[in-house]
This record gives sequence, C-alpha cells and structure tokens, in this order.
Amino acid sequence: MRRYACRGAALAVAALMGWTMTTMAQTERKPTLEELIPGGTDYRRVAGSSYVWAGDDICLEREAGCLKGMRLNGHMKVAEQFTALTLDEANLLLKQQGLSPMKSLLRAEVTADPADEGRLLLLLDTGRERVLVGGPQKGEPWTEGEVVWSQPHPQGAAHEEWNERSRHLAYTRDNNLWVLTAEGREVQLTDEPAGVVCGQSVHRNEFGISKGTFWSPDGEQLAYYRMDERMVTTYPLVDITARTGELDEVRYPMAGMTSHQVMVGIYDVRSGRNVWLQTGDPTDRYFTNLAWAPDGESLYLMELNRDQNHAVLCRYSAADGRLMQRLYEEQRPTYVEPQQPICFVPWDKEQFILQSERDGWNHLYLYDTQGRLIRQLTSGPWMVQQIVGFDQRTRSVIVTTTEVSPLQSNISAIRLKDGRRWRIGSDEGTHRARLSGGKGIRLLDEASAPELPRRVSIRSTAPGEGGKECVLMTASDPYEGLEMPVIETGTLKAADGVTDLHYRLVKPARMEQGKKYPAIIYVYGGPHAQLVTNGFMHGVRGWDLYMASKGYVLFTLDNRGSSNRGKVFEECTFRHLGVEECKDQVKGAEWLKSLPYVDGDRIGVHGWSFGGHMTTALMLRYPDLFKVGVAGGPVIDWRYYEVMYGERYMDTPQTNPDGYRECDLKNLAGQLKGRLLLIHDDHDDTCVPQHTLSFIKACVDARTYPDLFIYPTHKHNVAGRDRVHLHEKITSYFEEHL
Amino acid sequence: MRRYACRGAALAVAALMGWTMTTMAQTERKPTLEELIPGGTDYRRVAGSSYVWAGDDICLEREAGCLKGMRLNGHMKVAEQFTALTLDEANLLLKQQGLSPMKSLLRAEVTADPADEGRLLLLLDTGRERVLVGGPQKGEPWTEGEVVWSQPHPQGAAHEEWNERSRHLAYTRDNNLWVLTAEGREVQLTDEPAGVVCGQSVHRNEFGISKGTFWSPDGEQLAYYRMDERMVTTYPLVDITARTGELDEVRYPMAGMTSHQVMVGIYDVRSGRNVWLQTGDPTDRYFTNLAWAPDGESLYLMELNRDQNHAVLCRYSAADGRLMQRLYEEQRPTYVEPQQPICFVPWDKEQFILQSERDGWNHLYLYDTQGRLIRQLTSGPWMVQQIVGFDQRTRSVIVTTTEVSPLQSNISAIRLKDGRRWRIGSDEGTHRARLSGGKGIRLLDEASAPELPRRVSIRSTAPGEGGKECVLMTASDPYEGLEMPVIETGTLKAADGVTDLHYRLVKPARMEQGKKYPAIIYVYGGPHAQLVTNGFMHGVRGWDLYMASKGYVLFTLDNRGSSNRGKVFEECTFRHLGVEECKDQVKGAEWLKSLPYVDGDRIGVHGWSFGGHMTTALMLRYPDLFKVGVAGGPVIDWRYYEVMYGERYMDTPQTNPDGYRECDLKNLAGQLKGRLLLIHDDHDDTCVPQHTLSFIKACVDARTYPDLFIYPTHKHNVAGRDRVHLHEKITSYFEEHL
Repeated sequence: MRRYACRGAALAVAALMGWTMTTMAQTERKPTLEELIPGGTDYRRVAGSSYVWAGDDICLEREAGCLKGMRLNGHMKVAEQFTALTLDEANLLLKQQGLSPMKSLLRAEVTADPADEGRLLLLLDTGRERVLVGGPQKGEPWTEGEVVWSQPHPQGAAHEEWNERSRHLAYTRDNNLWVLTAEGREVQLTDEPAGVVCGQSVHRNEFGISKGTFWSPDGEQLAYYRMDERMVTTYPLVDITARTGELDEVRYPMAGMTSHQVMVGIYDVRSGRNVWLQTGDPTDRYFTNLAWAPDGESLYLMELNRDQNHAVLCRYSAADGRLMQRLYEEQRPTYVEPQQPICFVPWDKEQFILQSERDGWNHLYLYDTQGRLIRQLTSGPWMVQQIVGFDQRTRSVIVTTTEVSPLQSNISAIRLKDGRRWRIGSDEGTHRARLSGGKGIRLLDEASAPELPRRVSIRSTAPGEGGKECVLMTASDPYEGLEMPVIETGTLKAADGVTDLHYRLVKPARMEQGKKYPAIIYVYGGPHAQLVTNGFMHGVRGWDLYMASKGYVLFTLDNRGSSNRGKVFEECTFRHLGVEECKDQVKGAEWLKSLPYVDGDRIGVHGWSFGGHMTTALMLRYPDLFKVGVAGGPVIDWRYYEVMYGERYMDTPQTNPDGYRECDLKNLAGQLKGRLLLIHDDHDDTCVPQHTLSFIKACVDARTYPDLFIYPTHKHNVAGRDRVHLHEKITSYFEEHL
Repeated sequence: MRRYACRGAALAVAALMGWTMTTMAQTERKPTLEELIPGGTDYRRVAGSSYVWAGDDICLEREAGCLKGMRLNGHMKVAEQFTALTLDEANLLLKQQGLSPMKSLLRAEVTADPADEGRLLLLLDTGRERVLVGGPQKGEPWTEGEVVWSQPHPQGAAHEEWNERSRHLAYTRDNNLWVLTAEGREVQLTDEPAGVVCGQSVHRNEFGISKGTFWSPDGEQLAYYRMDERMVTTYPLVDITARTGELDEVRYPMAGMTSHQVMVGIYDVRSGRNVWLQTGDPTDRYFTNLAWAPDGESLYLMELNRDQNHAVLCRYSAADGRLMQRLYEEQRPTYVEPQQPICFVPWDKEQFILQSERDGWNHLYLYDTQGRLIRQLTSGPWMVQQIVGFDQRTRSVIVTTTEVSPLQSNISAIRLKDGRRWRIGSDEGTHRARLSGGKGIRLLDEASAPELPRRVSIRSTAPGEGGKECVLMTASDPYEGLEMPVIETGTLKAADGVTDLHYRLVKPARMEQGKKYPAIIYVYGGPHAQLVTNGFMHGVRGWDLYMASKGYVLFTLDNRGSSNRGKVFEECTFRHLGVEECKDQVKGAEWLKSLPYVDGDRIGVHGWSFGGHMTTALMLRYPDLFKVGVAGGPVIDWRYYEVMYGERYMDTPQTNPDGYRECDLKNLAGQLKGRLLLIHDDHDDTCVPQHTLSFIKACVDARTYPDLFIYPTHKHNVAGRDRVHLHEKITSYFEEHL
C-alpha cells in the first residue's frame, strides 16, 4: 500500500499513518456549504483568467471589460503587452454599425480571416448577432478594430455551428436543420415530421458523439445526422410547473427494445444539393466518429453493429454518398468503443491517426488512406487521452496521456516519422493544453496538482524546450483562511487480489486521538469516470470537504471498471455491471473499518447515477457493512436504461437474462436493513424516474423502508442554486442516521 | 367543557380528569399494526354476519356456505328457523343448468318476481352469470330452489346496473353504453369517440352522483349520463410498472378552467328509441339528483349553475326530452349543494319528498308534483342524514337523523300527513337501517356505540314499537385480550369563542403520573366528513390506537367546516378553505398543551387529502406550535383541484384571487420550521401529484427541507396490504422526529 498526502490549504502538513493533528491557528473557521458547492452564494472557485491564442505569437487574456494581449518573442518571453480591445471600444464599434451592445468580453474568440491569410479577427457574440472585428495583420501590432462582418442569430435557432472559413452557420429549429449562409441566405435543409431529428447529437451522446453538424474543412459542405425516433417508445416525464401537469415525452430506447435509426446527409451550400450516405439499412447500427477528408471529397466514419463488438472505418463519397472504402475493422468479444474520429495529418492529406484500444490501451496508429498501417505511434501500459493538435514545425502530434500516472494527464509530443516522444511541461499534476493557432509551435499549459489550484503557462512544443515556461498566472488557494480537512491518497488491492486501486481519504482537520469517526464512501464506480486524480486536492469534491470538516472521514476508491486504467481493468464488469465493482468497494470499506480512527459500525455510502446504483447495491448486498446510504438518480434495473450505454456492458435482456436478473436491485429490495435515501429528479431523461419509483414499489412489496426525495424540474442531477439544497439534504440524512 | 370516556375493551374504566390509570392485568400485550390496520395480516375486524330481507317476514343470514332463514311472527319473534339454500345445493342447481359454480353465498341478494307478485327470488352472481333461483311463494315455507332465469355477464362489461323488474342489464364497454335485455338481446346505445363517456358517473362524483345509469321503475327505460370531456385538459399520470413508463392520462378540469359538458339521455328498450333531455347549452352547468316519476313518464333532476349558488328542480318528458316544469328553485349567496334526488311517496304518485338545507339544516319537505309545498316534515337544529324508505302501513318515511346528537345517526319515522315523528331503536350510539322488502313494516337496525362494536336487531317501524327488538347478533370486542388505550371525548370552544367542537382523545393504557407524553393530532377538517362519533370506540382509527399503545396521546377535533353540524358551521370556511379550520385546530392544540400529561413541545399532526392540506398548513402557519407533520395526498394549491368541489368552496381563481393566494401553501413554503413528511400516490387522480411536487419545488426554492415519500400505483390513499407499510412509515417518522 502506497500513500501520499497533501493539504488543500497552502500549509503543507505531514501525513501521519494513523491520525493527523494540524497545528493550525484556532482562529480559522470551517468552510460552509455555500462556499464549497457550485451554486452556493459564496462559492469559492479557483480563480484565474481565461486565455486564448491569436496565432502563434500572440496570446489574449480575456476579462469582462478588456482583452489584454501579449506578444511572445523567440525566447518564450513576453516582448510586448497591450490592450487589444476594451468593452467600451467594442460597444462603440457595435453601436456605429447598429448592432447590440455586449456585457462582457469573457467569451470573445479569435479566428483568422480566410480572405486575408493570417489576419486575426475577433469573434464576438452580442447575444443577438455574431460579429467579426478586425485585428492585426500577422506580425503587426494590434490596431484599432473595425467591424468586418456580422450576422444576426436566426430566430428560434439552437445547436448553432458556425464555420470560420465560410462563415456559414448551421442551426436547428425544433427538429429540423437550417443553414444561414455568410451572405445571409437562409436555407431549410430538412422538413421532417416530429419524431425525426436532424442536425442534433444522436445515439444518446455515446461513442464520443456530442453534436449533429460537421462542416467540411472549407465550410462549404455540411455533414449532418438525421435520426428517426418514431419507432422508439416514449417515456413520459411530467412538468409540474405548468398550470396543469404537462407531458414532456422523451424518446427513450430501452435495452433490448427497438432503437432509433440514423442516417448521415451532406449538404453542399454552393450547389444546394443534398446527398445521403449509402450506408444501407440503418436498423441496429451506429454511425460515429465523422471526419472530413482534408479535400472535402469524402467523409469517414466508424460503423458499429448493435452488439458493439465490431467496428468498421468507412469512407463515403461526399459527391454522391457512395461507399468508397472499408479501411479498418476491429472486433472484440466484449465490445469496441470508438470515441474519437480519425485525425488527418496537416502536412500529408494521405495520412491520418486512428485511436484504438485494440492492444488493451488507447493508443495512436498512423494509417494511410488506403487503410495501410504505417506505424503504431504509441504503446505501453498507459493510454492516450486526447489529441491536442499538431506541431507542424517538428511534424509531431501533441497529446495528453496517462504515461506518468493513471491519475494524471501529461502533455507529450510524438514525432510521426519515428514515434519519438517528448514531454511538454511538468511530470507533476494533471494538464490541459491548447495549441497555438498558427503552426502549433507553442501551447497554453493549464496545470493543477494536489497543492496547486491552477497554473497557466506558455510552453514551446519543440523537443527539449517543454520544460521552459512563461507563467501567465498562478491561482491562489481558494480556501485560504479556512480550516480545511486533510487529504491522503494511496492504493489498495482490488477484490481480485492483484489489481491496485487508487483511493482518496479526506479526514477532519483536527482529529482527537482515540476518537472514532463515522466514515462515508463517495462512489461512482462506472465506466468513463475517475474520481481520484492528481489534480487540485486530488479531485476532492466540495461536499467531501464539508463532511470532513463536520467530523466525518470521507473515502473514495476508483474500482475496477472505472476509466484510465485500460481495457482489462474496465471489462471485468462485462455482463454484470455493479457486481465486481461492489466487491472492490467492499475491500475499501473493510480497509476503512480497519483504520484506528474510523468507527466501523458507522460506514455510509453516497453516489449519483452509476454511483446511485452502487450505493443502493452496496446497501442491499452488504447490509451489515453499510449503515446509511444516499443514492441519487440510481440505475435500478438495466432493462430501464438506454440501448447504447446499457447494451455495451450488459448485452440485451434477451441474450443476458441472468446478468440482468443479478443486477436488478428490485430483486434485492427485501434485503434493505440500513437507512437508504433515494433521490431522483422528475425530469431525469438519462436515468428515468421509473428506476427509483419501481424500486420504491419493490420495497413496499417487500415491506422494507427506504426514504425518497424528488427534485422537480431537474434532470440527471441537481445543478445551479439548488445544488446547495441537495447537499444540505444529503448532509442532514447522514447526520440523522449515521 | 363536557367530557365522556370509554374504553374499547369490555372493561369499563372511569375517566379521570387529568390522567387515567388502568387496572388491567400486566399479561395483556399491546396490539400490533398488523392487527389494527385494514390490510394487515392479522387485522381484527368487528365480526358479524350479513343479513338481508326477503319480504317483510323473512330475514336471511348470509354465510359463505349457507343462507339461513328466519321467519318472524307478529310479535317480532322468530317463529321458524330454516336453511334457505346451501352452497352445495346452489352449485348443484347451477351445474344442472350448465352454469358456473360459486365460491360463496355471502353476496346473494333477494328480489321479488315481478311476474309472480310476491314470490321471492335469490339473485346469485357466479362471476360469469347472473342467476335467479326461485324461492318461496309469499307466506309459504322456503321450498327447494330452481333456476328461474340466468344471463351471462357481457364480455368486457363494467358499471353493470341490473333491473330486477325487467331483468335488463345496463353496462359500459370502455367509454360507451350498452344494454343486454332480459331476453339476451345486446344493444349498443352510444358510439362515442374517446373523450366522451357514457353511462358512468359525472361531475367527479360531486352533488351525490355515484353512477351513470338510472332505470325507470318498470325497468323498460334507461336514463343515463353522457359526459363530453374532450375540452378538458388532461393530467398525465405515469404507470411505472409498465415495461417503459406508460402514460395514464386523466381528464381533470381544474378550478377556473374549461369543464366538461354533461347531457342526459333516455333509452326506451321496447321502442329502441333514444331521446336527449332538452336542457339547452350544457356549458358550465351541473345536472344531478336524477329521479324517475313513478309512472316513468317523466324524469326529474336538479340543475345547478357553475357558481353552485342556484339550483332548479326540473321535470323533463321521457317521451321527447321536453322541459315540462321548473318545480323548485333554491339560491344562496355561498352555495347550494343538492345531494339527494327527490323521493316519491309510494302511495301517492303526486307527492314527493325534497331534501334541502335552505333553513340551515338538511330537512325534509313534502311537495306535490305541481311544485307546491304541502308541508315541511322536519325542522330544528339537527339534520336528516338519509331517507331509508317508507313504511306503507303507517304512511311514514323512515330516516336517520342527528336529532339525538350530531355524533350519531338515529332512526326515526315521520308520518307524512302531520309530521309526527317517533324513534325506532335506541337513542344510544349510531345506527344504520335496512327496511323490510315488502311494506317496510320492519327494519334491520345495525347499531354501534362507544362500547358496542356492532349489534344487529330487527325492529318494527310502527309507533311505540321501535323499542322492541329481536336481536340477531352482538359482536364481541375485536380487541379482547389486548391492552388497549383509553378513549375520552368532549367539547372545546372553536376559535370563534362560541361554537362547541367535539374532540376525541386517545391515551396510552398505562400512563405514569408526572410523565409528559408526546401528542399527535389526526386531522381531516374538510367538508363531508366527521371523525369523532358515538360509534364503536368513538370512531377511533386503528393507527391512533397503535400510536397510543406506543406512548403517544392522540387527539382529533372536528373543526368548523366539517359535517353534520349544519350550514352555518360549514360555511365559515367559504372562499378561504383551511384558514378558519386551522384556527380551530390551534385551539385544540393549545388545549392539548395545557394537559398535565402532554409534552407541549412535542405536538405532531397528521392527515390525508384535506387533512394533508391541514397538516401542511398547520406546520407552516403555526411553526412554533407543531414539531412534526405527516401530510398525505395534500391539497397544496386549490388552483390544482377540480372544478366541482373546489369552486363550491373557493369560487374560481379569477373571481377569488385573494382567497386562492391566501390558501396556496406554496406561498408559505419558507415558513417550514419543523419536520414535515409529504406522502403522495403516483396515481392520485383526485388530488394530482402536482400538489405535492410543486410544494417540494417551492421548498427547494425557499431552502426549506420537507421530506417526501411516494406510493407507486396507488390512488388517493394507500389501501390493501400496503396500508400497513404506509402506517409503519408514518409511525417511524413520528418516532424519529417527534
């Protein structure tokens, strides 16, 4: 067992094995829920400006009233600082053109003028219009702005996607798709009845899908999704804020049931022609990872069967929708999960990078457009998390990976010709990168580490230069002046006796020797998530800090099945989600009980969504281990969950009846011994209220006594101002019963 | 202040002013919830047979396996006892005719053969068929049975109404109405689209309406309701037991909104002709109290405007639906509430009895068919509760009234020619009566009193003979052998300082001198109900007994606005329901606090429906008085309640905005201080879930913290087996928090 320790406050405190006594001044007070929970009136965010690249040499710092600029010299030093634009100046410019004023410049973007290569433009959104304001020519100082172009937001538009080259705008109105051209011509692309959705995300945002429109590189062709949901059963949600309860029906395909059908269309703005990709019968097929060829002549996508165990990379003609090529196939007995489109190499339009987990870890493969593997670019027991972009000078791809630690993202460059790899920035902590807008020779490195809330610096992407940095800002500790809990991390063995699992332990700041403290496990446990990181304070949640400051020991363990640990780690849960995960959490709970300062008779558990499932499952499967649980938006029966996510891990109720039965928590309702509060949102369209309500019915049938709360009008969690209410509710439940 | 006391157990215990100490054996155990709550596995019902008249002289005792008969002589003595029919005999008869066997004779009915005047027939329902079995000729001994007539239940039939004279059956299939004639001819009377309901109850069962079909005296004409609900908004309820949550939409007209439209049709079986009553535009009008003229030539009904302050008794021609006469009008600034049809005098088809609250109490008025008042038959500060029937020998009407006490129903006869009135049966306790089937010269008197679970006897209806009785059964104490709480009743002054209100106090069996007990008020408080009676154990509820046996003092007070106390008592709540009622309950709570054995800091409150509103309102309006509340199916905002009930007391949100605002508990959500559990059924189509959920939202907005529970699949309360779960839930909430 390894252990690390840190304190959120600036003072470093040594971690003691058993208990920790801080030497802090007695005058420090404990944080309040309002200070710790997003939505709270005094919420203490990690402070810091927002930066954006303007080419390779200029970086803008966005503030509400001003865009500050800095120009870097070749030595990575700030050669010049200037004011690019003030809000007053912007509003004067807008007023002169009869446009609406802005309230803030915080979201201003930088783009390049395609007609005037290299000239930088500011993209401003007034709320009513999208406006381009002229900036400096390349290499010149920032000059006075002028409104170069503007366009009103179309009435009733949603899902806007604007292309900076063509300046055309794709958007939806209700369920149909429209384009507003740069010249102001409005074109309705689809005219579908209700139940057919165009230009929006499909497949319930699985397979890496987050949107429904995809402009070609020149912005003159628009690829888009069309999803026919008319054959999908509806789930009735009720809006109780209407004068009389009103129905909000959502199309929700449940595991094993008829799913929606997706097509991909391509609209050519210049010709006005629309073609459909000739994919054949779309029944029970998924189309994802759309990627345009650099020349805009073809569109690549990954096709997946309903079983999700066979993926094919296909290339379609943009001109007529014909299938041109099947470039790559991947099969796996469990499932394949392509989440990232292929990525073309900027300097060679015949080469692209494919991401695949086929060797057990997500790695990069360089292919040519004939489907021939040129080179596996990365390998090893770690994963590539994200392609940030390309450095065109060193001909390398910039990525973030878990190579240093599975708890971290660190930035690397990989040279395509030989796979040579070098780190950019520190090995410590976790990093996000934004590449400079020209050749990608620099990047903004946004770092955090257990004792570092946030530091933003500029680094060169060149080999040997990644250690040099030009620090733009270092955030101060948001909890300065408060008495904060102590955080420790370490590893425990999973229930398989072999695998290391990472935990985070949050302890009250002042623990009395000999005293036993109640403990609460915060759990998620499902795929696609990791709770213990080497980010600020190890990724601790505000509520965990709050509870620790009230005298609870908070514990979180990323069990097998969670993310960033590779395919084998994830797949042990296949076809019986929640079972192995619970066994790992029990290992954590047993370790917690073994701690001299933990009261082993007072172990609680809390989680949301998959974590709500875990919480409920732990309470039912290990009724003597857990005294109190709070399960938010839980999955109770995977039959009620949707097709894409659910069937990936569980197959269908028809093909895996035993697995579905084993994981249906209604069947365990009679085993409830402790106190279990279930919380559900009445507009939860991710995990529909049927889960919780059917479990309540099962408990009534079994004469067991869970508690229940419902947050009206909220979706799959409670966000915004009400999040404080939620956590007060959760807190008081533990305080009353644990 | 007056006080009465009783103990549920057979032992009489003197009521002491302050506290009561029983001398019961220590060996008696306390009752369990399962014994006290209907639905509980060991529920202790008041035992007793079920009796039914067979003419004036014969009374049958119904048992599952046997119908026992007794013949009475002129001296009210049982002259003969015999077995009318055994289940085996019945099943043999049925088998011979190829009919389905029966499992029980408990619901056998007695009717008379219209073709053979006076011959008694047994009406048996096999579940598949309705069967008439021949009984004795009048005055003759019961002979061996024979199947005289039978008819299968039509497939899919609901709302069956069978006429014993014609033997025609009216019934509904889905939303339409059908008739199956005695001869087996099936006629579809209506063919309406969804949203138009025929042959079922209308106006949401208000105005005394409980069904939608009304046979003429000879059974050859059928009057029926047709309700067009297509213009009424739907409320979406969700069935979570379906594979995917399914929608159950109910048409629910909310206060001030567009309501349904009702028509009355008459179908003549012989001619096959249908006519509609020519009532004119049905918008915003109520048609109730349908009554056939004895000759079947006309139909009477009461028409009411939407304001419910103007009622008109109308007579329509059955032949052509023409309005023949407006016989009687009643207006009142608050509301008139006709609940009983007129009742024709059997020996004079030109006379009928009208019930009206026009002098402030429900009394009887004898009218002729020209609409002329012949005589007010009853008057005084008490009310007629029910017309039981007519004694044709003494030419009197038999009624139950509150004349002896507003906590009781006692039976009286009133001679029509002069209003002379005499009591039938005891002045003590509360009574139900069933008149003998011939001339109405005897009745079955079913009595209960604080220490009498149930006694059934036969009495003569003649003057001076009502005291004589032939006792058929006396039920034993269902709680024999259990240690039962002590029950006291008495009166307190209402918040107006004048009106006497009746309370019931339930105290633990063994109270320790000097000890303070927590107290819980069980409240309903709305119109149409009374909780404190002189029935068995003063009408105490099983849960009250349970809580008292656990060491709580239970208290119930019938505040102003509740039933049986006359119009003025009821109407003080007009246009601001709940406000005066709460003030009265506060008087009760203050008195409770003054009791030496009550812990005044631990007062709880519980109620359902209107009582749920009261519970919530008391918790919010008097946050320092009440510590814990459990509100079931509460009305929160009268805007969400239905038109008929709601507008009677509240007018509309448009005409009474201040009243609706004052009574909208969402506006008081921020005042919640104590612990309040709201319980709602997810299929509550009386008080829709929007009430509770919108209140939860208001509390979240106001950052107050109620608790919530939902009973899936239940309607406007939790009945059956789950009722025990409900009361365990309620109990533990008080145990945890009070």
